[in-house]
Amino acid sequence: MKNKLGTIAGSLAVISSILFTTHTSAQEEQDFAQYVDPMIGTAKMGHTYPGATVPFGSIQLSPDTDTIPYAVDGHYNPDVYKYCAGYQYDDHTIVGFSHTHFSGTGHSDLGDFLIMPTTGDLKLNPGTESNPENGYRSRFSHDRETAEAGYYSVMLDDYNIKAEMTASTRVGMHRYTFPEGEKSHLVFDLMHGIYNYEDKNVWTFVRVENDTLVTGYRQTNGWARTRKVYFAMTFNKPIKEYGRERYDKQPYHGFWGKFDPTHNFPEIAGEQIRMWFDFDTSVPLEVKLAISPVSTEGAIQNMKDEIPGWNFDEVRQQARDTWNKELSKVDISEEDQEEKVNFYTAMYHAFLGPTVYMDTDGQYMGIDRNRYEADGFTNYTSFSLWDTYRALHPLFNVLQPERNQDMVQAMMAHYDQSVHSMLPVWSHYGNENWCMIGYHSASVIADAIVKGNADFDEQHALEAMVNTAKTGYYDGLQYYMDMGYVPEDKNGASVSKTLEYAYDDWAIAQAAKKLGNNQVYDEFMKRAENYKNVYDPKSGFMRPKLSDGTFKKEFDELNTHGQGYIEGNGWNYSLYVPHQPAELIEMMGGKNQFSQHLDSLFTMELPDKYFENTEDISREGIIGNYVHGNEPSHHVAYMYNWTNDPWKAQDKIRMILKMKYMNGADGLSGNDDFGQMSAWYIFSTLGFYPVAPGSVDYAIGSPAISEATLYLDNGNTFKVIAKNQSDKNVYIKKVELNGKELTEPFIKHDEIMNGGELKFWMSSKPNKNLFK
Amino acid sequence: MKNKLGTIAGSLAVISSILFTTHTSAQEEQDFAQYVDPMIGTAKMGHTYPGATVPFGSIQLSPDTDTIPYAVDGHYNPDVYKYCAGYQYDDHTIVGFSHTHFSGTGHSDLGDFLIMPTTGDLKLNPGTESNPENGYRSRFSHDRETAEAGYYSVMLDDYNIKAEMTASTRVGMHRYTFPEGEKSHLVFDLMHGIYNYEDKNVWTFVRVENDTLVTGYRQTNGWARTRKVYFAMTFNKPIKEYGRERYDKQPYHGFWGKFDPTHNFPEIAGEQIRMWFDFDTSVPLEVKLAISPVSTEGAIQNMKDEIPGWNFDEVRQQARDTWNKELSKVDISEEDQEEKVNFYTAMYHAFLGPTVYMDTDGQYMGIDRNRYEADGFTNYTSFSLWDTYRALHPLFNVLQPERNQDMVQAMMAHYDQSVHSMLPVWSHYGNENWCMIGYHSASVIADAIVKGNADFDEQHALEAMVNTAKTGYYDGLQYYMDMGYVPEDKNGASVSKTLEYAYDDWAIAQAAKKLGNNQVYDEFMKRAENYKNVYDPKSGFMRPKLSDGTFKKEFDELNTHGQGYIEGNGWNYSLYVPHQPAELIEMMGGKNQFSQHLDSLFTMELPDKYFENTEDISREGIIGNYVHGNEPSHHVAYMYNWTNDPWKAQDKIRMILKMKYMNGADGLSGNDDFGQMSAWYIFSTLGFYPVAPGSVDYAIGSPAISEATLYLDNGNTFKVIAKNQSDKNVYIKKVELNGKELTEPFIKHDEIMNGGELKFWMSSKPNKNLFK
Repeated sequence: MKNKLGTIAGSLAVISSILFTTHTSAQEEQDFAQYVDPMIGTAKMGHTYPGATVPFGSIQLSPDTDTIPYAVDGHYNPDVYKYCAGYQYDDHTIVGFSHTHFSGTGHSDLGDFLIMPTTGDLKLNPGTESNPENGYRSRFSHDRETAEAGYYSVMLDDYNIKAEMTASTRVGMHRYTFPEGEKSHLVFDLMHGIYNYEDKNVWTFVRVENDTLVTGYRQTNGWARTRKVYFAMTFNKPIKEYGRERYDKQPYHGFWGKFDPTHNFPEIAGEQIRMWFDFDTSVPLEVKLAISPVSTEGAIQNMKDEIPGWNFDEVRQQARDTWNKELSKVDISEEDQEEKVNFYTAMYHAFLGPTVYMDTDGQYMGIDRNRYEADGFTNYTSFSLWDTYRALHPLFNVLQPERNQDMVQAMMAHYDQSVHSMLPVWSHYGNENWCMIGYHSASVIADAIVKGNADFDEQHALEAMVNTAKTGYYDGLQYYMDMGYVPEDKNGASVSKTLEYAYDDWAIAQAAKKLGNNQVYDEFMKRAENYKNVYDPKSGFMRPKLSDGTFKKEFDELNTHGQGYIEGNGWNYSLYVPHQPAELIEMMGGKNQFSQHLDSLFTMELPDKYFENTEDISREGIIGNYVHGNEPSHHVAYMYNWTNDPWKAQDKIRMILKMKYMNGADGLSGNDDFGQMSAWYIFSTLGFYPVAPGSVDYAIGSPAISEATLYLDNGNTFKVIAKNQSDKNVYIKKVELNGKELTEPFIKHDEIMNGGELKFWMSSKPNKNLFK
Repeated sequence: MKNKLGTIAGSLAVISSILFTTHTSAQEEQDFAQYVDPMIGTAKMGHTYPGATVPFGSIQLSPDTDTIPYAVDGHYNPDVYKYCAGYQYDDHTIVGFSHTHFSGTGHSDLGDFLIMPTTGDLKLNPGTESNPENGYRSRFSHDRETAEAGYYSVMLDDYNIKAEMTASTRVGMHRYTFPEGEKSHLVFDLMHGIYNYEDKNVWTFVRVENDTLVTGYRQTNGWARTRKVYFAMTFNKPIKEYGRERYDKQPYHGFWGKFDPTHNFPEIAGEQIRMWFDFDTSVPLEVKLAISPVSTEGAIQNMKDEIPGWNFDEVRQQARDTWNKELSKVDISEEDQEEKVNFYTAMYHAFLGPTVYMDTDGQYMGIDRNRYEADGFTNYTSFSLWDTYRALHPLFNVLQPERNQDMVQAMMAHYDQSVHSMLPVWSHYGNENWCMIGYHSASVIADAIVKGNADFDEQHALEAMVNTAKTGYYDGLQYYMDMGYVPEDKNGASVSKTLEYAYDDWAIAQAAKKLGNNQVYDEFMKRAENYKNVYDPKSGFMRPKLSDGTFKKEFDELNTHGQGYIEGNGWNYSLYVPHQPAELIEMMGGKNQFSQHLDSLFTMELPDKYFENTEDISREGIIGNYVHGNEPSHHVAYMYNWTNDPWKAQDKIRMILKMKYMNGADGLSGNDDFGQMSAWYIFSTLGFYPVAPGSVDYAIGSPAISEATLYLDNGNTFKVIAKNQSDKNVYIKKVELNGKELTEPFIKHDEIMNGGELKFWMSSKPNKNLFK
């Protein structure tokens, strides 16, 4: 029934989008949110969180199942990696509900402002998984847990408290239903955080403004070196009593004996603070907590603007409506339940970040720690660019063009504020954390410029890309500029850096070309060929070179560590020339040899030793030696399109879709990487993929749906139809664009954005003559 | 010659002030700044600093002679007390020059942004007084040191560097003349501070914006719990090279091996940072450092607005001109050099604070840590109110009426932002440090209201006073309100608190009366009599009472410690009823008995044991048992005016002026207390004193000058003439106000502000029939 309604609504939307060039209520009325399962990826290493959030929301209100110190006795604690998003599906206790979480990242931070309702005697320490009763945490069961788009609920079994939460962009809303007649408390833990180490908390400041309003901030030194988040928290009933404990090494003596600062004293500050609030809990206690990058005033205003009242169910419905609006941009109503769950959950994960980083009035904290007002754009933060430049931002150029332009403007603001005059590398909350390599902002910006989705100052953006790419003191870049490669004896992971710089340089050149700047184009096209400088024809691999011009002798092309690569081994990284696959293939022995080389990649067997001491790679995360969990290979299956065997891409892609993306908490085989893995899924499921952002071309893969309709923001509709598609029928017999057969395995960006129909006829047998 | 010119200029000013009701250039041209000796009070316990500052300036750029930790092994280090202002005259080394200092306080903080020029090998630790060559500090000699109003200079002997500094309100300017041909460095120590303890530094953030501009902030947890000062520093020549060391316990790993963050890397952050900058020093190096309460942008703008260029000598002259403008408000040109040095240095110390606390555009940090813009007033901070309500703010009502109104507005802004809805107790840099007792903001505000110097919302101010005085959880106040006194077994220093609350309550009542609010008047006049509840007729002293209504048995009226008082013993505090001296005298046995009681106070001898373990009281700091270094007795000598022996006030006052205020570095016998001691000196030297702020009455003392002309901001001129005055002729034979003989030893505020002449005839013998 729902499916049928969905189809009708979808058809109406097609008609109305032609008439009105905008989404219609008919289209938006579909409840695609029902297929979102926020639990997917919460087990093992997906690093997603199950809590409540809205698309690109600043608030991610989600349960944290443990608090693991980042370091023990000064040494990194590898267990902390499991808790990048705060929640591990296999855990049996919940510590509490905190308001900020990254989705799918491979390093972490955040976990601000943990709230936990309890009954019985007050406990202010979190306790442990093995002895939960020693602290305020509670046991829970997935049987009494619900995770939906914009809503999360769980029964806290130790207290018999039902916890529910929902969110708007900047406000988290909680509803706690307590058992009758028990002593009850609300713990507010300002020491809690994700990737916590001893001195991570730099300062906290809290004011109990009146009996229903608490404000303050938390300042941390973590992945973001200098991060500050302000909050305003309000309750639907008056605080009866409250207090705090301060766990600082350094006491503060400044009260001069005038006060008891631990009890009902409205001004609290220190490094390590935990608070408690008591209420009459005979009817459910509701809590709203708004955050702001700049001030408690800003947080209060955000709360007034977004959730002024106390209608939890209405806020929950609004959150779901907001999700449906975004999810309905791609209608795959015809598919089966499992596919819809996979697809709409991928859409959900793809639309979690970058997150809005400004108050409703546009104010945010710049990277220079000064306040700014976003002028004419929405400011975003949390740019996991090494991951997301590949498919997520290209996906946004199709499905979220306006947001992507705003994201570019946010990157440009970062550049303008940067003391290095550099675009972001991996930035969050007004900080640069420098994680991973390359300068992939350039790819994101070039992709937007080349695709004509560039309602920003393009010349200034080109300047920013060029300046970033010429910051000599950044990560071996001076060597790269002087010598044409990063020498391994001077700067590690030198092969990966050389290859990624070369790709980014090509992207810059493409933008320069589009903007008519031949000088920059020529300069960066020359740099774009630097990948050739690390290719070793003898071994047939990209290989670390020393500053004396010789290749490093010791070399294990199967090992990910210490070989000149990062998050990839020689096999994977040697294929990283997304911008000039034809040249790469020629260099590596021609189309047929390369096709066989790719075959080996997917079929070879890696000895056990290569899985030791590796966070990101596991037996289940790879196919042969193809590592889908790490991004450098994301374009690899599509490289068959440049050989004589495009059909080989088709079964590989379907195999990856099938094996690496599944329903269930453990459905993701690796970190979702802030939506990059999901974006790969979405593109590949739709049958095309942006191999080289900065190019307008998409490589044709193998559509995994029968019918998908893309409702584009420009009012156009692009339909993908795959006749006879099934798990077995993964090969393309024929493909037509707007009724005209494709002679090459590529389509162009405009061909999507202008609307139309991409129609596949699928078969269980490869059509080896296709595209010839 | 100068004196003669001074007199002529003074006369011109009298004429012109009648014509134009404003100061004239003729008056301002006098160089009273030549008499200012900033060294006075820098030896022993004066706690003044010798560095460069302008009146009420935010910058106090001054040498620090040592860095003493506030605590050693968790225990308070009593030596730190000497360094409240950073400089001790008897020290032989200078650590460097920092930009913020309190003047004369009895507890401390600040010392932000220490700069030290050096030659030879780079050293980044300060070294020690005994082994200065182990660090960057230098030996110095007072022979090669100059301290003037707005200018300080010293030869750093270890480096042969001449250091000079001057200031505007928000900018400190340095000039360093290096020896030829030496390696040279500029050390920038962000760990340095006054009253430093281990975790005092909360965070520091620095950006080398370009080769002449450095910005950042320092955030501390000290006397001010949550203090943050932003800076912008610029140089008159490009930085050649720079670097930093980070002394944090917690390393920051976030650079991922991309950078060498210690050398020429422009973004520095951490808890414990020291930096160095190298320049070509063949010509003098000049440095400007501006501070801001809100942002580095604000600091940069402050620098542009105040000292845009590089003319050190011009800035120095402007600073001196600014001082002359303020100092010329009282012309005592006729006096001798020693008196002029004492008087103008007292004027200088009185006009050091409270200090301006806002950017040139009005922005400042509120006590709720949000940003505010001062609307229609100049915001001030550093209110040492327990000291300054007594004479300094009353002095401002005469000589700085507009500033005093702005200070009230700053207090009101504090009240509006306070989560306690309380006026400041002792506030600095957007923080309440709660130091000392009472709620003397009420006295300051009431005094301004009663004296008609109240261009602010008086009704709102009355509300603020009343709310402050009804904050039950503040320092025993609920007991006081319930029982009429603070019981010693519930809250220490109970007698002092009871007495000071009673006085403040009376001040509130006076404001209420002036504003026509009879209800508040009646309520607070009743509270104003609470001093009676701690008077013990048996012992004749104000004495600690217990919550059961009995007096505490053990009682030593000579001991300052643990007896129910603070900074005073039973003898001193029992006289603390400034608002109802007549009632007090009656209660204590009548006029004659009281007069003899006062005589005993000034003549008795205190046994040695009462000087042990006492920071503020020393043999040289007291006269008999009269302690002038601690404020509670400041009105005491004037109390003779309410007995039959006003003449006894006259010799006591002159004795105090003579003994407690002298030329020379050790000229002050105790802390200057942010100008309160100096304000006492100024009033008493002029011959009158505000015994009870909140009253319009001044008690007549004994003028210590022959002639003084007060140029009031309203254009009026008030002249004090003391015929035949000398060290011996301390008694008043006769006194006339505008030609009419005074029959009581009092004059009123309006009689001063309306202009006129107060003429004394002095004698070596008391006129015991005067005022009868």
